[in-house]
Amino acid sequence: MLTRNEFFMLKALDFAKAAGDTAEIPVGAVLVLNDKILASGFNKREKKQNALFHAEIECIALACSKLRSWRLTNCDIYTTLEPCIMCVGAIINSRIKKIIFGAKDVKNGACFSNRLNLKYSYKPQIIGCVLEKRCSNLLHNFFEKLRFQHQ
Amino acid sequence: MLTRNEFFMLKALDFAKAAGDTAEIPVGAVLVLNDKILASGFNKREKKQNALFHAEIECIALACSKLRSWRLTNCDIYTTLEPCIMCVGAIINSRIKKIIFGAKDVKNGACFSNRLNLKYSYKPQIIGCVLEKRCSNLLHNFFEKLRFQHQ
Repeated sequence: MLTRNEFFMLKALDFAKAAGDTAEIPVGAVLVLNDKILASGFNKREKKQNALFHAEIECIALACSKLRSWRLTNCDIYTTLEPCIMCVGAIINSRIKKIIFGAKDVKNGACFSNRLNLKYSYKPQIIGCVLEKRCSNLLHNFFEKLRFQHQ
Repeated sequence: MLTRNEFFMLKALDFAKAAGDTAEIPVGAVLVLNDKILASGFNKREKKQNALFHAEIECIALACSKLRSWRLTNCDIYTTLEPCIMCVGAIINSRIKKIIFGAKDVKNGACFSNRLNLKYSYKPQIIGCVLEKRCSNLLHNFFEKLRFQHQ
């Protein structure tokens, strides 16, 4: 029996796999409102040649467009990798209620892995390490394959 | 005689004014490569109803599109207001060399005003407070006018 968080993290994992299938670092995200997926996204940095095209940013842009509002209050975002500071900033700016992430990103993560010490009045709730093993395995296997190809 | 930084900050100020003219918080930015403006942007959050539409993000998206590359190495970004964490993250992600900002943003700024303590290996150079008075006056007058209209 899956928890709510595991259920939506599995959906985010599907999008992460779609990124991996197109030779992008496999990170996926879904944005949930009232227990329904409002928007989804996956990393497209290489394909779009655009540094902004992280999974979370695609989700937020799509959700704002669907709701016709920059405020995504009451929305939760599920992402397979701990978001970077750009994405945490976008999540704060769009007033998303909760961040649920899968694998930790010790180098670039901005939830737990980098101390931000923000004075911002708005702080989303953060839940880490949901289906962590599956999410990190997907990334690990992607980079293993890449290393093998370049040997 | 204007310095290089003042020259480009004046250009960014022109875009900030354009934002203010459309009832947006007046923040503008230009992205400079080889002493030429490659891209410009201004805050369009309300018009677009999208939390991502900060001046810096518009600049970066446009510059990536023009250069057909997510790497904006050797580019400098001039922005009239100290960038928030989303924009600092986007600047790091796109490998912009230098951030030059005008007015400080004590609440939301992520250059000096919030201690980020990042472990990121890539760190852009930061120069603050160029034409600070002009940049902060523009914001101050905008909010004064807003307060007056709502009295």
